[in-house]
Amino acid sequence: MHTSIATVSLSGPLTEKLTAAARAGFDGVEIFENDLLASPLTPEEIRARCADLGLRIDLYQPMRDIEAVPEEDFARNLRRARHKFELMTRLGADTVLVCSNVSAQTVDDDSLAAGHLSRLADLAQDFGVRVAYEALAWGRRVSTYDHAWRIVEAAGHPALGTCLDSFHILSRGSDPKGIEDIPGEKIFFLQLADAPLLAMDVLQWSRHYRCFPGQGGFDLAGLLTHVLRTGYRGPLSLEVFNDVFRQADAGPTAVDAHRSLLLLQEAVGAVELPPPTVPTGIAFAELLTPDAEPVAALLRALGFTRTARHHGKPVDLWQQGEARVLVNTGPAARRDGTRLAAIGLESPDPAAAARRAEALHAPVLPRRRAPEDTPLDAVAAPDGTHLFFCATGHPRLPDWRADFTSLPDTPAPAATRVDHLALTQPWHNFDEATLFHRSVLGLHAQESVHLADPYGLMRSRAVTNTDGSVRIALSVGAAPADDTVHAAHLALATDDVVAAARAFRAAGGRLLPIPANYYEDLAARYEFADGELKTYRELGILYDRDAGGAFRHCYTETVGRVFFELVQRDPGHQGYGAANAPVRLAAQHGARGTGR
Amino acid sequence: MHTSIATVSLSGPLTEKLTAAARAGFDGVEIFENDLLASPLTPEEIRARCADLGLRIDLYQPMRDIEAVPEEDFARNLRRARHKFELMTRLGADTVLVCSNVSAQTVDDDSLAAGHLSRLADLAQDFGVRVAYEALAWGRRVSTYDHAWRIVEAAGHPALGTCLDSFHILSRGSDPKGIEDIPGEKIFFLQLADAPLLAMDVLQWSRHYRCFPGQGGFDLAGLLTHVLRTGYRGPLSLEVFNDVFRQADAGPTAVDAHRSLLLLQEAVGAVELPPPTVPTGIAFAELLTPDAEPVAALLRALGFTRTARHHGKPVDLWQQGEARVLVNTGPAARRDGTRLAAIGLESPDPAAAARRAEALHAPVLPRRRAPEDTPLDAVAAPDGTHLFFCATGHPRLPDWRADFTSLPDTPAPAATRVDHLALTQPWHNFDEATLFHRSVLGLHAQESVHLADPYGLMRSRAVTNTDGSVRIALSVGAAPADDTVHAAHLALATDDVVAAARAFRAAGGRLLPIPANYYEDLAARYEFADGELKTYRELGILYDRDAGGAFRHCYTETVGRVFFELVQRDPGHQGYGAANAPVRLAAQHGARGTGR
Repeated sequence: MHTSIATVSLSGPLTEKLTAAARAGFDGVEIFENDLLASPLTPEEIRARCADLGLRIDLYQPMRDIEAVPEEDFARNLRRARHKFELMTRLGADTVLVCSNVSAQTVDDDSLAAGHLSRLADLAQDFGVRVAYEALAWGRRVSTYDHAWRIVEAAGHPALGTCLDSFHILSRGSDPKGIEDIPGEKIFFLQLADAPLLAMDVLQWSRHYRCFPGQGGFDLAGLLTHVLRTGYRGPLSLEVFNDVFRQADAGPTAVDAHRSLLLLQEAVGAVELPPPTVPTGIAFAELLTPDAEPVAALLRALGFTRTARHHGKPVDLWQQGEARVLVNTGPAARRDGTRLAAIGLESPDPAAAARRAEALHAPVLPRRRAPEDTPLDAVAAPDGTHLFFCATGHPRLPDWRADFTSLPDTPAPAATRVDHLALTQPWHNFDEATLFHRSVLGLHAQESVHLADPYGLMRSRAVTNTDGSVRIALSVGAAPADDTVHAAHLALATDDVVAAARAFRAAGGRLLPIPANYYEDLAARYEFADGELKTYRELGILYDRDAGGAFRHCYTETVGRVFFELVQRDPGHQGYGAANAPVRLAAQHGARGTGR
Repeated sequence: MHTSIATVSLSGPLTEKLTAAARAGFDGVEIFENDLLASPLTPEEIRARCADLGLRIDLYQPMRDIEAVPEEDFARNLRRARHKFELMTRLGADTVLVCSNVSAQTVDDDSLAAGHLSRLADLAQDFGVRVAYEALAWGRRVSTYDHAWRIVEAAGHPALGTCLDSFHILSRGSDPKGIEDIPGEKIFFLQLADAPLLAMDVLQWSRHYRCFPGQGGFDLAGLLTHVLRTGYRGPLSLEVFNDVFRQADAGPTAVDAHRSLLLLQEAVGAVELPPPTVPTGIAFAELLTPDAEPVAALLRALGFTRTARHHGKPVDLWQQGEARVLVNTGPAARRDGTRLAAIGLESPDPAAAARRAEALHAPVLPRRRAPEDTPLDAVAAPDGTHLFFCATGHPRLPDWRADFTSLPDTPAPAATRVDHLALTQPWHNFDEATLFHRSVLGLHAQESVHLADPYGLMRSRAVTNTDGSVRIALSVGAAPADDTVHAAHLALATDDVVAAARAFRAAGGRLLPIPANYYEDLAARYEFADGELKTYRELGILYDRDAGGAFRHCYTETVGRVFFELVQRDPGHQGYGAANAPVRLAAQHGARGTGR
């Protein structure tokens, strides 16, 4: 279907918005009046710019407080409308959004409203313009879509139709089924926005917290299904007022936006995308580091053995049980220091996984880095992490380890695998990252939680596959300034965290020390076997429970922006130690000596 | 009265919080459990640290989900409580906060609740601890202060009292008058928090948006008056959960917090501070610049004349009518480039104004910079701007111009004065800045408004004196990263903005160009005399109206971080051109070529 986005959804001057929308694949835009007013381009120049970019101007918006007012006010409003219709002719826009009146002057009289809208449509028609009338959720007299439609229907004017906005409909809890009673050709426009389910004043909710479809709590697929049943074939247009998007760069926001519309169309069967290929495990994590030794020492202490080396690049494969870590000392490492740069996801069909990612705007990375390399399907996640879709020991698929030459050491026999990966997201991308991992990789998102860092609240949300063999915890700091403070980490599963922690320490590893006060609180909250708590305290092991069982975990020191966690997870436990995060984060700040 | 603050209100590790609280003048703290758990200090060490800092530990908090539960759960809760009472003994804290139960297990049975609290108080008494029971606004069965009090009263235990929290009381719209029915000695603790009046879920409102007294919309003075009438003489304690304070440095936040408590005590007559001395005008604005020439060229084009020079420092006085600008090329300028560094406020009693500012924690600046200088009273505002309390041509007060030696040029006769000053605030200080200007200077705050910058929403709020001769518009960017993007500006009043703009341009000044689209919109919205709009468009003059009349304004180019505005304000107009801010901000970004 034709996709469109309101310029108010993107940051920057108008031309920056238009460029971003076109590059992301949108077919059209809604021009938000303030963006036009603030632009140094004439309407004709904006029209030409849009044409150059392959964008149609699907809507000009908004026109406010027009209808159901005293006659002398309406005369003034018509005069104002004439100016805007002239402008729209120059702009080449043929549909205008009229919002239901919010002013104190408006009268509660549907036939007056219908009469005024009809006269407005008469005038519009002279300019080749159509009027799309929309009920704002906080409209003074008209605040529901069915009420707006009754007025449009009563007016019975060919140049007058209704505009449906998912936020205004769903934020009020209106039943969208009634949309099917509206003839499709009288729905002149469809605006889509999702929103988190917040109990708050609807105007503030609308102005600051809207988000792209799939990033909030509304059933947009349900609503769109009703709309499509009417025969509507107009644009699917995003109108999203969001404080974060206003600050973020327009380019990535537009990509995020367009991806959300593709997914929504997929959900209603309006577009066919390559289906998700859910990853079945973590094949490897790749660390970039300018100096392999601190990382190697940490891996060795954790029980990893260096088992192979890449045939053409300075990349070592370290292994322990089913956990594999690549240590890459290539040139890219020198810029950013030690960081987690890539993840290998076990995929039953790597090529199909990459096709879906590509269809959903993930940048595809070169399949071969060098002519002699095994081809590998890989894309970049929104945070820049490289995701490799690969196979380890699969009977029919090429093995990514083919590029590695074995070293004499054999891996430790420990029954280890990756419990989860934790990735800090850039501040502006948190909702995008969740939607990306859900929709591109086919993972499920758990509830979002707040974690109290000593210097601000963080948000965290995990995405997992069904059997928990892939778990990725995405988190974001309190504000843009904190982007670089929090590190990524790799959590290794163990059946005995005490033994694993002791072995790590015996091998010279340093565990994150946890304050004694924490253990006194544990003693108050839970009953432990004799000596159990003493052991936890000695090793810095943290403890949490949910209905599914216990979660015992401890952390290593941090190297660069990476650290490791040892995790003993009861099979039914679904958490990641959120209850312990304030203590852990404070301890990490303390260990780093960040008095800031 | 004894002042206290909950450690959760400040950022950083516990020791950083304690130091900040003590330095700001607090007498005590509430120790928030998570802060203790995350601290590497033992309870005894925390106790000693507090003693060193002169802080009493007034409260340990919180204890949750204790009362009105099945008996076996209660036994477990008592066990947990015993641990905490032992801890409190080591900590030297004698009062514990118990929040009304929020768990699904709690039973709707007041006598069971009273019985449990009584048994808890029995145990507490053994440790010399008092239990303060508080109704959370979202408590499952007990959510109002009078309900909590009825349970405490029914229990009739000497070691059991109630804790009142202004947020929990006022957020639910409870009438605080009923507080007077509680005997003062049964109010064991008083927690104070203000909050903006938001229509939203009370739990989210409480956890993220609380603020210090005077910064929100609650009548805390009214509530405190009721509390004091009961005979309560315990601590006034701030418990403020706020996402911004969690990120801000603890030091300034603690100062802001303590100032708010002083003002609250002043409001109820519990403390006497030097009364406000409201400024009666803007004596001068001082610009720091490493290179006087660009600023001088701008001032000359605006009609200013350089009339005097400081006798001991590289500071020139530029004047036009009643508007005065100091241009300081001293060494401090080299670091930050051109910026607005100080404001001279006309004061009927400069010494008294400074005494109030000092009593309210404003850093006092040296009265004489050099032995030969006229003594001048000055303090630093929260954003670091120096505020001079001074007099210009006053019959009995020393004139700040005494330090300046006249130059041969005489000032232009233009009837100009400063209409307003606009200051960008550091991100974390916006609410503090408003409270400071209101309470220290005795100005009134207008409503806060949002301004749409192309790269994020800004907030702006003006403070003024009664006759409008002092107007300061405080604004803040969308996020910390934007701190340096927005400049300060000085708006000059004129009776004829067209003539002033023409004169400025004729003198070689550059006005900020405003897009033609803006004027086409003005034509649609208002009726203008023939040629009026053409003139505005030619000069870049913006236009706004309110019930009090029109506001016409235009902007100069920016030098460093400073620009000027020319303002023609109808006497009744109260605004600052907020409606035009999106267009102006976009034009400024465009002029600076900030593709970022």
